[in-house]
Parts: sequence; structure tokens; C-alpha cells
Amino acid sequence: MDTLKIIKVGGRVVEDPESLNNLLDRFMTISGYKILVHGGGPAATNLATQLGIKTEMVNGRRITNKDMLDVVTMVYAGLINKKIVAGLQARGCNALGLTGADMNLITAIKRPVRDIDYGFAGDIKNVNSRELRLLINENIVPVIAPLTHDNQGNLLNTNADTIAAELSVELAAYFDVFLIYCFEKRGVLKDAEDENSIINELDSNLFKEYQEQGIISAGMIPKLENGFHAKQSGVKEVLITNAVQIATGRGTRLI
Amino acid sequence: MDTLKIIKVGGRVVEDPESLNNLLDRFMTISGYKILVHGGGPAATNLATQLGIKTEMVNGRRITNKDMLDVVTMVYAGLINKKIVAGLQARGCNALGLTGADMNLITAIKRPVRDIDYGFAGDIKNVNSRELRLLINENIVPVIAPLTHDNQGNLLNTNADTIAAELSVELAAYFDVFLIYCFEKRGVLKDAEDENSIINELDSNLFKEYQEQGIISAGMIPKLENGFHAKQSGVKEVLITNAVQIATGRGTRLI
Repeated sequence: MDTLKIIKVGGRVVEDPESLNNLLDRFMTISGYKILVHGGGPAATNLATQLGIKTEMVNGRRITNKDMLDVVTMVYAGLINKKIVAGLQARGCNALGLTGADMNLITAIKRPVRDIDYGFAGDIKNVNSRELRLLINENIVPVIAPLTHDNQGNLLNTNADTIAAELSVELAAYFDVFLIYCFEKRGVLKDAEDENSIINELDSNLFKEYQEQGIISAGMIPKLENGFHAKQSGVKEVLITNAVQIATGRGTRLI
Repeated sequence: MDTLKIIKVGGRVVEDPESLNNLLDRFMTISGYKILVHGGGPAATNLATQLGIKTEMVNGRRITNKDMLDVVTMVYAGLINKKIVAGLQARGCNALGLTGADMNLITAIKRPVRDIDYGFAGDIKNVNSRELRLLINENIVPVIAPLTHDNQGNLLNTNADTIAAELSVELAAYFDVFLIYCFEKRGVLKDAEDENSIINELDSNLFKEYQEQGIISAGMIPKLENGFHAKQSGVKEVLITNAVQIATGRGTRLI
């Protein structure tokens, strides 16, 4: 099977022009088939503020009412996605920007209201990679914004880490998939105060242990859960690293 | 050759949820291969106003400075494009939203500054339909936002009528292309005050004559110029009509 690298980058990396340019330069050094999945939260919050729309987060997840859905659609699928696509095209990479609605790539259900009403937030139900694979084989590089759809005409705000994981799992049937989560640190740290305390390899038992001991922080937990889910569902390799290291293989490897 | 219908709809039609739904319902009744090209000017002006960004138009064309480019990118490629895509997916149509940057579909040059500096406005240089045709043959329905790129990392605001015409010309080598321009009226009117004075057939001589006599109004001229250019470059049929009539063949036919 061919190798496919799925790189997920957070909102902060893609927002500032300089860090975006650096990221795209490094992304270009990754050989073979690849996909970029991006976030965009801080820019969405910024636009919402300018429009007088209040940002509410619960457990790190955005409450997405109708106005906020318009904001994230504009920022994720418009501003950020197309800037990345234009930037990659300028570098000779044949990028194609997508949301989960395009080519019916990712269907989700609106998150059921229990204690909290997250609004137009989507929990992924199905990934359809038929046309995506056709394009990947034509050397198109998909750039995916964190939006899905419910097949009833609604876009849904969906966590980018989860999109990257579910896409990896679906594509693992057709490629040797390497899932690379890119965040601010060079890997998962054993000591938040020490940038050099990178955990080189993490298995799910150690992950539980570190969680219980409070070594792995709250924000990191859903990312690692997504990563372990992918690793346990046929994805060949899952790496947690930063933008500088995306092409190096360095960081925290899930085993 | 197979038939391909390229429908261009203006910003007003796609903005209001009810008229958008009506449009999409009618678009679904068009059989065979099809592409939707959309505008979005009024919504962009609206968002710009909310953000305190001044809208300046010269000869009906938007002055697109850096801030305005972000606005049109958010509105055209994000909000409007993805709402259309989600709406078509809900109707069982496998839509894919694109700008000219995606898959390097449309390259443009930043309009040279002569009397007026239009800012990030693009004049089309090249249409590359290779991957687009692959997708059309897979029954994907492209939905195209009025943005192109300069292959140097910049998105460019580009007239949707011109995009529809240039795309039609490029695809005329592979399909029998029907280009359908959709605006507020049922066709080109001989008397602006009389909705029933539709010109059924218009050739370029008559167009010139009507222009000289002031029968055809200023706003209509660039649209008809685009249409005649397409007709004279191998496009099988060019029709000017409204949203209600898009599947009927009624309106003003360019001959």
C-alpha cells in the first residue's frame, strides 16, 4: 500500500502569516500522498467579537448557535482554508480545500442535547472517501476545514482532531496512514514546565496512568483519545509533535 | 459529446434562505452534467459594513483592498458556497464547492492599475479543467465561488459572470456547453418598464444597435459581452433568464 500522511494543524499555527508560511514550507518537504486538516478557533473567536457575537466554550468545545455557525463557516471554510490552498498552489502543490459537506465527505449528527446544548456541533457518523481517493491518486492534496454536514442541509462545527482521526481510520483500508497531530510543543511533556521532558513513546496504559497522576493535562486528553482510537483502528503511526518537526518523525509516538 | 449546463446565479438569489431553497429545488430539475457559479456581492457588502469596512464600487466593480479581500473570501468561499453545497447534498446532489485556487482551476492576474486601482481584483489568465472534468464525469457537481488566484499565494476577487463564461469556453472542447445567466428578469428587456418586452433572440449586431439606442442598460452590458464572447468561442448556447426559468430554456438566447 502507498503511504498517506495526514497532518492536523491547530488554529494558532495557520493564523499568523509568518507561522502559516513556515508551516506550508515544511508541509512541502513531506513526500508522497498527504492531507492537511486545519483548525481555526482563535480567528473565529476574533471575528465573532468584531461582530458582537459572544463566544462560549464548555469543556474546550465551542457553543455553536446559528450566528456562530456562520462565523466558523466564514473563517474555517473561507478565510483560513482558501489562504492555505492559495499558499500551497504558489508552492507547486495542487491543493483542494474541502469541508465535510463537499463530495459528501463527512456526515455527522447534530450533537444531542444532554446537560449542554452545543448547538450546531457535529459528531461524525460516516466518512465517504470514494472521490477523495480518486483525487489523492491524481496527486491532489486535500486541505480540510473542520466542518461537516448532516445531509439535511446543515453544516456542523466539528473538532478538527476528530476529523483527522476518523479520516485516518477510513483511509487506513487503502493506504498506510501516518497521522501527525501538530500543536505548540515538540511532543507530549512529562513535565509541563520542562520543554525537554518529551515522552517519546506512549501506550494506552501509560496514558491512563499519566492521566490519573495529572501529568497529562486536560487539553491534551481528547487529542490523545483521538490518536489512540486511530492507532487501534488500523492507522499505522500516530505522532504528536509541533509544526517545526512535522516532516522529521520526531515527537511523541503512540504505540 | 455530453451536454454540460453551466448556471450562473447572482448574489441576491443565493442570499435569502427562501429564494436559495427555490433556486436549489429548480437546479435539481436540470438533468445531466451541471455546474453552478454564484455571486455574493450584497452579502459581502453587508459583512463589510458590520466590520466597519467601507465598500467602494467603480463601474459596478468592487475595489478590493486587503480587508475587503478577507471579507469576500469569507462570504463567497465560506458562507455562501458551503450553504449551497450543504443544500445540494441534502437534495441528493453530490456538490463540491470550489474557488479558482482549488485544484489550480482558474489563474488570474491582479488587474493592472491604470486610472483606478481595483486592488485584489483578478483578470482571468488561464482555466485548467483537468481534475474538474474527472470529477464531472464522476457526477460531482462543482459549485464555484467568484475567486481566483495568481499562483503567487494571493486570492483575487473575480467577476462571476466572467468566470462562468471562461469556464464555458474552456469546457466547450469537451462538452456541448449551455451557459445560463440567471438574473432578476425573465430575459433582456426591450423596455425596462415592461416585464413582457423580452427579447427572445439577440445577435451581436442587434446588441450594438440596442446599446447605441440606450435600450440595453449599463449593468447588462458586461454580462452580454461575456455571453457573446462565450457564444463566439464554441459554447453551444447562451441564455439570459431568471431563477424561475433556469430549467425551461426560456429567456433571451444569444445567437
